[in-house]
Amino acid sequence: MLITYNLRPELREQVEANPDLDISIAEAKRGRHCWIGKLLIPMVTRNSHHIFVGRAMASRTTLRLLTKPSSGSLFQRRCISAYGYEQAKALTFKKYGEPKDVLSLHGHSISPAHSNLVTLRFLASPINPADINQLQGVYPSKPTFTTALGTADPIAVGGNEGVAEVIATGDKVKGLKRGDWVIQKSPGFGTWRTHAQTTEEGLLKIENKDGITAVQAGTVSVNPCTAYCMLKNFSDMQAGDWFIQNGANSGVGRAAIQLGKLWGFKSINIVRDRPEGLDALKADLEDIGADVVITDTELQGADIKDKLAEWTNGGREKIKLGLNCVGGKVVTAMAKLLSSEAHLVTYGAMSKQPVTLPTGLLIFKDIHFDGFWVSKWSERNPEEKKVMVHDILDLYRQGKFKDTPYDEVKWEWETKGETLIDAVQGTLDGYRKGKGIFVFGKT
Amino acid sequence: MLITYNLRPELREQVEANPDLDISIAEAKRGRHCWIGKLLIPMVTRNSHHIFVGRAMASRTTLRLLTKPSSGSLFQRRCISAYGYEQAKALTFKKYGEPKDVLSLHGHSISPAHSNLVTLRFLASPINPADINQLQGVYPSKPTFTTALGTADPIAVGGNEGVAEVIATGDKVKGLKRGDWVIQKSPGFGTWRTHAQTTEEGLLKIENKDGITAVQAGTVSVNPCTAYCMLKNFSDMQAGDWFIQNGANSGVGRAAIQLGKLWGFKSINIVRDRPEGLDALKADLEDIGADVVITDTELQGADIKDKLAEWTNGGREKIKLGLNCVGGKVVTAMAKLLSSEAHLVTYGAMSKQPVTLPTGLLIFKDIHFDGFWVSKWSERNPEEKKVMVHDILDLYRQGKFKDTPYDEVKWEWETKGETLIDAVQGTLDGYRKGKGIFVFGKT
Repeated sequence: MLITYNLRPELREQVEANPDLDISIAEAKRGRHCWIGKLLIPMVTRNSHHIFVGRAMASRTTLRLLTKPSSGSLFQRRCISAYGYEQAKALTFKKYGEPKDVLSLHGHSISPAHSNLVTLRFLASPINPADINQLQGVYPSKPTFTTALGTADPIAVGGNEGVAEVIATGDKVKGLKRGDWVIQKSPGFGTWRTHAQTTEEGLLKIENKDGITAVQAGTVSVNPCTAYCMLKNFSDMQAGDWFIQNGANSGVGRAAIQLGKLWGFKSINIVRDRPEGLDALKADLEDIGADVVITDTELQGADIKDKLAEWTNGGREKIKLGLNCVGGKVVTAMAKLLSSEAHLVTYGAMSKQPVTLPTGLLIFKDIHFDGFWVSKWSERNPEEKKVMVHDILDLYRQGKFKDTPYDEVKWEWETKGETLIDAVQGTLDGYRKGKGIFVFGKT
Repeated sequence: MLITYNLRPELREQVEANPDLDISIAEAKRGRHCWIGKLLIPMVTRNSHHIFVGRAMASRTTLRLLTKPSSGSLFQRRCISAYGYEQAKALTFKKYGEPKDVLSLHGHSISPAHSNLVTLRFLASPINPADINQLQGVYPSKPTFTTALGTADPIAVGGNEGVAEVIATGDKVKGLKRGDWVIQKSPGFGTWRTHAQTTEEGLLKIENKDGITAVQAGTVSVNPCTAYCMLKNFSDMQAGDWFIQNGANSGVGRAAIQLGKLWGFKSINIVRDRPEGLDALKADLEDIGADVVITDTELQGADIKDKLAEWTNGGREKIKLGLNCVGGKVVTAMAKLLSSEAHLVTYGAMSKQPVTLPTGLLIFKDIHFDGFWVSKWSERNPEEKKVMVHDILDLYRQGKFKDTPYDEVKWEWETKGETLIDAVQGTLDGYRKGKGIFVFGKT
């Protein structure tokens, strides 16, 4: 096999003289990169010739590193190139399954940003239930499997939401500069990664990052946006109107309570009955603006209609909207409390049970059952999405909107893959303290 | 008890001289009417005095009829007063239950139309499933129970749809004249009756009755209007788009097939599997414009997706709408065939089973589940209702829209109550030839 090194002649000689070259080339072929000293150099194959791309500046001494990487896979030392090659890590998977079975931490390098490319360093990326469903292969939006990160088999990066800082831009990039914060306009990009390179089009710039945290910016586009849209886009909600929701202590639930309160809407909030901590949870939700908090058991109690009459001034105040992320019997019970012509919007199915509708509610009460998926909505309404994101971030900045409780998972360069994978797997446990969020340190 | 006859003196003497007067007065008290010869005269009671109202003109000979009516209840001979008192009969009920248990044929008289009153003679009144549900007390729209028809206990008249001819109008009635055909704008009036008196406001005049039959006019406002609204008001249906419906051989189903065909929509029509007559039924529906007719068994077959692809040009033609009057599993199976963002509209629940929705259809396919109730819609959209009714009647007139098969139940003055009640009860049987319709003869 003829090997053409696109290197300075003296370096090429050294490479050819190296006894471990074959091993290195084997790695290179697999990864489409080749280690030259501390540089992981992209390599292309044309007509069976391996061609190193870029102007490698490795000195003689660095050639000592042209040996088989100790881990057997790509060499994951943290090295930042003087020529802009970023060393990156990402939680990736090449087949669907449980997080612990399919995720692995993959290292690769990112070439300098040129032309219309933007290089990003992630700051915060949440672990959402939908991300897990995507890993399990049961989510309709599939990730992109690609060999672009230097693997022989196509892999995908987990995560669909997060905020990143721009660390480099190509000369054709006009709308972004180093230091800007960006979020993805659409899901599917893969946000459980330290760095990434992409083009400007898919990014939504945070116009004003003052006074907001990376966690706030990194979690704005799924949960608060879902709550925002559902409160705004289905029923003609006016100040004084009610909505009812289950999963009220979820990220979306808490966002709905707070946004609803700001807009003058009252809320009946359903949480799962639980052996302990119920009073504290109720107080917590009331503290952020919940008018009524009840358990699913209380919802299905015989006296619920009387209670409802009490809350809603004998039914004169209308319950125009229901929000459902649970499914099953609780939804039927909720739907029965809705006023005529209300909408019941399903955005999740935590119980994995279907929604069962007595036909009378459809025909005679004219209740509409809809679903909402923020991903599809965002793709179709990019401008509205932008306005909404900045509206919510303004509320954060003004102290009118509080973070949902979260479990910070620190992701440093040295953090082990298993720690990160455990954090993803852990979100599948029952009653959680809060949503898991990767918060990136020194990467 | 002092009895004051508000009659001409010579007539009063004759009435007092009649040996059967007590019986007649007893009847009068119960019915608030009193037979004076062939006249059933309204009577009021003031301070325990019975006062006959009106200027009775009975001759000496008619007094022979002042005897106990043979049936023991109100005397139901067909007698038309020279002074405009109409003898009427109505299928009434005073409590909820099965038709055969609660319905009875009630006779009463209707005073001459004066002021803003209109006297109607019914021509055709269908027996709709909703009418039966109303009798059973399980329908949300309750009938009006009243003593206005001369009973001690409040009663209601069955039936919610029909066409009547104007036979008399008061001097303040401007929009209607003798001979006009009218239908009720809203349900709840009671249409299983030979005659009725009401005001102009609740009536929708058939502007042009030429070329349409009483059955067509009398059945236009429930079934064809339901189909019309569902095809027009939920999804953005364009020529070439598909809809899918169950209960396709019902009145609404047949109307939807025909209207859809006229507007360029294609239809997948689901009928119940049945031991015989299936091929004839399929041919019948195809004859009026059905593109595809399948049984509920075929719908739930393993190869349905392949068939669907064949019908819809590999899915390029969208199924934007589903119409459901059955409920249960068939709805879930139908919903799975809908294109993204379709609406599935429930207007009936023949199976008495709820609609069960996999949440993925709501969230990811953005299928909307709505209900439709033509009664409520009509009350809220009177002008649109009028336009729609005349649009449909025009289609009948032009021969573009065919009657749904029906079983005519002739209602003559002499027709026995049990015959009429049997016809109502009979609609509860399984596979019917067609909808039952009272068609009035000499009443």
